[in-house]
Amino acid sequence: MTACRASAPAASAEDVVALVREHCRPLAAERVALTDALRRVLREPVRAPEDQPAFDRSSVDGYAVRLDEPGSQFRIVDEIRAGNWKPRVLAPGECVRIATGGALPGERLQVVMKEDVEVGDGIVRALRRDAAVNIRFRGEDTRAGAVLVDKGTRLNPGALSLLASLGHTRPLVTRLPRVRHVATGNEIVPPEQTPQRGQIRDSNSTLVRAFLGQWGIEPEQVRTGDDQVDIESAVTRPTTPLAVPDLLLVSGGASVGEQDCTGALFDGLGYRIHLRRTNTRPGKPLIFATHGHTLAFGLPGNPLAHFVCLNLFVRAALDRLAGLDQETVFTAGVLAGELNLDGNSRETLWPARVRVAGGRCELAPLRWSSSGDLTCLATADALLRVPPGCRMLPAGSVVSFVSTTVSR
Amino acid sequence: MTACRASAPAASAEDVVALVREHCRPLAAERVALTDALRRVLREPVRAPEDQPAFDRSSVDGYAVRLDEPGSQFRIVDEIRAGNWKPRVLAPGECVRIATGGALPGERLQVVMKEDVEVGDGIVRALRRDAAVNIRFRGEDTRAGAVLVDKGTRLNPGALSLLASLGHTRPLVTRLPRVRHVATGNEIVPPEQTPQRGQIRDSNSTLVRAFLGQWGIEPEQVRTGDDQVDIESAVTRPTTPLAVPDLLLVSGGASVGEQDCTGALFDGLGYRIHLRRTNTRPGKPLIFATHGHTLAFGLPGNPLAHFVCLNLFVRAALDRLAGLDQETVFTAGVLAGELNLDGNSRETLWPARVRVAGGRCELAPLRWSSSGDLTCLATADALLRVPPGCRMLPAGSVVSFVSTTVSR
Repeated sequence: MTACRASAPAASAEDVVALVREHCRPLAAERVALTDALRRVLREPVRAPEDQPAFDRSSVDGYAVRLDEPGSQFRIVDEIRAGNWKPRVLAPGECVRIATGGALPGERLQVVMKEDVEVGDGIVRALRRDAAVNIRFRGEDTRAGAVLVDKGTRLNPGALSLLASLGHTRPLVTRLPRVRHVATGNEIVPPEQTPQRGQIRDSNSTLVRAFLGQWGIEPEQVRTGDDQVDIESAVTRPTTPLAVPDLLLVSGGASVGEQDCTGALFDGLGYRIHLRRTNTRPGKPLIFATHGHTLAFGLPGNPLAHFVCLNLFVRAALDRLAGLDQETVFTAGVLAGELNLDGNSRETLWPARVRVAGGRCELAPLRWSSSGDLTCLATADALLRVPPGCRMLPAGSVVSFVSTTVSR
Repeated sequence: MTACRASAPAASAEDVVALVREHCRPLAAERVALTDALRRVLREPVRAPEDQPAFDRSSVDGYAVRLDEPGSQFRIVDEIRAGNWKPRVLAPGECVRIATGGALPGERLQVVMKEDVEVGDGIVRALRRDAAVNIRFRGEDTRAGAVLVDKGTRLNPGALSLLASLGHTRPLVTRLPRVRHVATGNEIVPPEQTPQRGQIRDSNSTLVRAFLGQWGIEPEQVRTGDDQVDIESAVTRPTTPLAVPDLLLVSGGASVGEQDCTGALFDGLGYRIHLRRTNTRPGKPLIFATHGHTLAFGLPGNPLAHFVCLNLFVRAALDRLAGLDQETVFTAGVLAGELNLDGNSRETLWPARVRVAGGRCELAPLRWSSSGDLTCLATADALLRVPPGCRMLPAGSVVSFVSTTVSR
């Protein structure tokens, strides 16, 4: 049991994130359809295969005439709809009816908007001609060969539509990680079950599944008691014929109690343990270990501590596995009200709610009673960093925080 | 064709959002499993079924003794592990070994941390006893009956874990909308296909699918040419036996050209048209119509205009259909650099990138050449509002914007 006891020096949140990042390598890349690429990280630069736009296009519905056309009355000699390709040389006095998006028939032309003309009997009379040529010129957005979506971009709907416009329909993205999650504890029962006295409902399994679900990751999940043999079996014997996980999460059992065997378990399975505790709260008991390409976290079972560790430390691992390359952990926001504290010697990650107003990013701290109190999670969307020993943060002070929403 | 022509007065982005909200009613609610409830909107207040915590629990591994215990040496009379329920009255000089999360055996007790004792031969000697009782008391987080997750909450992982802890495993949430999307245009080809001269790849279908996918909505999608009969058939004849859609999106054909028939189509199908154009750019040609419970948008085909209309107007409809009740449209941010403009008479929604730094929410405007230019969408995550007629916005000015990420 000695292996369970804390030995490594206590670390700040930034230390832990740095340690996790140091031990993570991006997972392999794979080509997927655009419909499967939402929120994936691009692993190749994507270049424009041709000029964008690829040809001169009308930006309005109207009539194409020569730019040097001196007159204001034109004979309609053709019609170009979007999708047509009808090159021709226009003579003075001639025009071509053209739709928005239609390919211009030649160069040195102008499109007179249909709102600015009178039409009758095949003849167009321009009521006004201003300087606007109403043409989207070939290459005005970008030139062939330019990188339009860079390596390391997390693909959102806008980026995916850009890839579609370039015909890049099988982007190279990082594969999703295989995650195994084991929730341990003799006191936990499934949330559907009424707890007996002394028992509580397991909320961590729901948290882990939903947390990972934000990136489309589906973990393999097992719930077991405190017995080390059961936990070991849950960790090592997959319920489905899954390959070795990229990420192993064990909830509960990370502390120093007699029943807290995650450390011993990781030791016994040959994992190299890099961290056994942090100097943060909630979330002091945290084990981080590696074995081959598998990353393992022993997470504190208390639900709020669990939330903090997932959003700071497991998230750092997920981002790095996905191929992202962030340098920083915290962002600077403004405290919306005075926060009175107990001068705790540990760094505190305080649940808060972010609101942007008047150009400021404001953080309203939420009430929490202990690392077991998850009532604030109905509204929390950030964790505010309170330095060790701090007794008061005045309203309006600039504070460090991390967002717990996926699009930060 | 006269029905296609603009008639309603031009509207600002806020006017359009207000109009859309006015015509939307929340969809029906349904009970789903927690695993299916991520990002759904809760339609009932969820109360604590019992005090939280439901019983006094030890917050550390240690030894429970009487609070009025005068001595510092105790005999271990029992052991309480997490999940046990072993009420007993402790006599002076007695203690119970207790694990983190274990139920206290009675009242008026203190838990001395295991780190603060020496143990030998069934006897515990406290090296120090401070004021901390190390107990999470019944009801200290919240009392039975208190509303913990309110009606109208969009369920994120934290809120779902809270519901799990309360045993509320089938929350009442808004059902997902049924969406049909028709991409029109003779010039568009599927993104997998090499466009002929005059043609372009359809990026709007990818954008719509990914945009809706952010909330787990899967649209039924069809691509057709400009012919009104084909479009009408695509709109009215589902490819799958789907019920009447809650939301009908038609991309392209919303303008005033001869081939722009969305307005006529909606008219012909008995839709009531509430709006035919806006005073915004990109995105002037926008049709908003209703028919029974179906909402319909005729969206401009130009990809950047499409992006703007989806993120402002379709998003307003989705939020209201989901049961959210926002009042505002824009948030105030700070412009990161000077923005020089052309004094356009329309309100401009300018693609930008949001960055929080030094407590400020800063917006960096991105380059775009026209409503057809989607190259900025690789990095855009906000739309910055530029008032009509504006020629310059100085760096540091407070500007209105809307985030295009899902968690705003």
